[in-house]
Amino acid sequence: MSDSILQVPYGTRDVLPGEAAARRQMEDRICSLFARWGYDEVATPTFEYLDTFAGSGQADEGAFKFFDRKGSILMLRTDMTTPIARMVSTRMRKDTGVKRLSYRAQLFRYEEAQAGRQCEFTQCGIEMMGASGAPADAEVIALAVHTLLEAGLKNFYITLGQMEFINGLIEAAALTDEQAKEIKHCLIKRNAAGLEQAVESAKIPEQLANIFKDLLFLHGGVELLNDMQQRVLSRRCWNALENLREIYELAKAYDVAQYLSFDLGLTRSLDYYTGMLFEGYAAGMGYSLIGGGRYDNMMQRFGKPCPATGFALGIDRIALTLQRQGSLDVEGPETVLVAYAEGKTAEGITLACSLRKEGRRVRLADRDMTEEEARQAAKENHCVEYRYVKG
Amino acid sequence: MSDSILQVPYGTRDVLPGEAAARRQMEDRICSLFARWGYDEVATPTFEYLDTFAGSGQADEGAFKFFDRKGSILMLRTDMTTPIARMVSTRMRKDTGVKRLSYRAQLFRYEEAQAGRQCEFTQCGIEMMGASGAPADAEVIALAVHTLLEAGLKNFYITLGQMEFINGLIEAAALTDEQAKEIKHCLIKRNAAGLEQAVESAKIPEQLANIFKDLLFLHGGVELLNDMQQRVLSRRCWNALENLREIYELAKAYDVAQYLSFDLGLTRSLDYYTGMLFEGYAAGMGYSLIGGGRYDNMMQRFGKPCPATGFALGIDRIALTLQRQGSLDVEGPETVLVAYAEGKTAEGITLACSLRKEGRRVRLADRDMTEEEARQAAKENHCVEYRYVKG
Repeated sequence: MSDSILQVPYGTRDVLPGEAAARRQMEDRICSLFARWGYDEVATPTFEYLDTFAGSGQADEGAFKFFDRKGSILMLRTDMTTPIARMVSTRMRKDTGVKRLSYRAQLFRYEEAQAGRQCEFTQCGIEMMGASGAPADAEVIALAVHTLLEAGLKNFYITLGQMEFINGLIEAAALTDEQAKEIKHCLIKRNAAGLEQAVESAKIPEQLANIFKDLLFLHGGVELLNDMQQRVLSRRCWNALENLREIYELAKAYDVAQYLSFDLGLTRSLDYYTGMLFEGYAAGMGYSLIGGGRYDNMMQRFGKPCPATGFALGIDRIALTLQRQGSLDVEGPETVLVAYAEGKTAEGITLACSLRKEGRRVRLADRDMTEEEARQAAKENHCVEYRYVKG
Repeated sequence: MSDSILQVPYGTRDVLPGEAAARRQMEDRICSLFARWGYDEVATPTFEYLDTFAGSGQADEGAFKFFDRKGSILMLRTDMTTPIARMVSTRMRKDTGVKRLSYRAQLFRYEEAQAGRQCEFTQCGIEMMGASGAPADAEVIALAVHTLLEAGLKNFYITLGQMEFINGLIEAAALTDEQAKEIKHCLIKRNAAGLEQAVESAKIPEQLANIFKDLLFLHGGVELLNDMQQRVLSRRCWNALENLREIYELAKAYDVAQYLSFDLGLTRSLDYYTGMLFEGYAAGMGYSLIGGGRYDNMMQRFGKPCPATGFALGIDRIALTLQRQGSLDVEGPETVLVAYAEGKTAEGITLACSLRKEGRRVRLADRDMTEEEARQAAKENHCVEYRYVKG
């Protein structure tokens, strides 16, 4: 027998009974929340043409690629925002009005596997397409907070940034594309030394250079927005901060402002964000559980320009966090074993059927047995009780 | 813009709002039924090592294959029974007792795409591992019937066969492997002329040859079992018929016998079945909606011999059948639009939050608007009513 016959591929895993049920219940609660907020579930293929993903910078070496029968390159999806943008631009292009869509999906990406980072992972998320204002962004952020609450998380927080703030600084400093890319790379990697070096070598006026150097440390509450509005010289940066202030005010109406703080150096590795963007973390966990933002330029790639905003939630990371917080539990009825004596199979079946009609979870013995065997089988089958049909 | 950027790969599709929700509700009802019958959900990776599938004859040209970073061949799963057998044999090998497991999963197979046959498709199903008797098979068949009922299907029927009956005939005729393979191939393809030719050229004694030639026409109720028990000469065939009779008697106790009929020539393209096997059809649809059977030899491939039985349900085919029967519907609350006048965004948010707490589905307008615009937006957003916060 070859070794690999028994193994799962690198970066993938089996989800056993118990954990699978708890995850399913959590996903169901989240999707039912999305529905209450007016989001309609959609589904897209597990793999797409490479071309569909190429423009959003995701068809890189991190993607699982293969060929179809005609020699076109396919890839397992790495993201749901891109396929949904494709779908809305083609299949739903006649649908006027704001579209609110939700999904749960398996995604795939070569990664060095570690806790919370696998090559196959599950995401739930939402996209709102056709709305450009702060109310849309505030709704998305408020729904993100409610999603983490509904998942059962304790001690989490959301950090909020604005790509337009960073892009406004880059414009004010008249950086080359190369210089801008280097600086964004340092921000993504949270590399302060690299950032300082990049800023020095770009020869930016001192006041502006200082803001760039500070970017990784511009964390704080709403007062940070006031401070920065006094420091920045560009209208574009000022507007970006004003947008965050407006979102914050609406977040108060949603009663979720207490979960928010600002991080003006926040960027994300997906490079399609154009406005506010955010990430959610749980205390003590080193990776983001949820992330999203505004991506107004994505849809034009598919021939139908349209403002858009949304988020995605890493179900595996949430499940791991809940496990560590001791609250990844299964709710619902315990299982009953129905067993029967020799010659009483039909009576056992009838009893099992009637208990199930009452909503009970019932395992029916697969053969006749003595009552003592039934007691033992109930234990082996993780049943809290048993019913026995005597001979 | 390249053409393929806008398209989905051959044999895949997007599932739009409405259909996606109806499918999700159907799947949820089915999985909740599986839980009431004591089946625990599990999940396995979307792709496996080719080796894992190789022994069950599924790593053929119908599989989507690709390489991992170490050059091992991976394939998108074509079936869930094989991965679950692998999982049970490795991760659950210390778990004594009968295991009842369920899943819902995306599967992949190159097919000539047509209605009800896509390259990516969804299956729900169950496996019972560790039980060898007719009661286990009867449970699986009864659960299959209840699954189709729970899905909302009307006018369906289940045909039941027995691989041991066919294997018993092959043994009695002392066919070579090559001859047996040819005959099974004709049975799968329902090729009566080919079957007759294969039987003629195999030079089988007349009485036995006549049974072989009849195989594609041995359909009927329980009286067929009596007739055939008088015609067959082999103990193995007789036992196979007796097993079907026993299953039929238990199906009466489950009150599902009225859905069953026998088809003694029934085989399935997956070649791992060893005992009873069955398929479910809806009137007027040319493909099976559900199929399963006993596969007692699969587990030994993974080092842990164990009897097993189960079934899988094609969700896409069920959805298509329900659509044609006019009953693929979404249940649940209709959506309300909450809109607000200029300066009343916070009040709109508060109203939306309180309606959601009452369990209503609420879309909140993404900007302030007049009441007339709200009326229009409700229509565009498929909302049955709207609530308006006046200025």
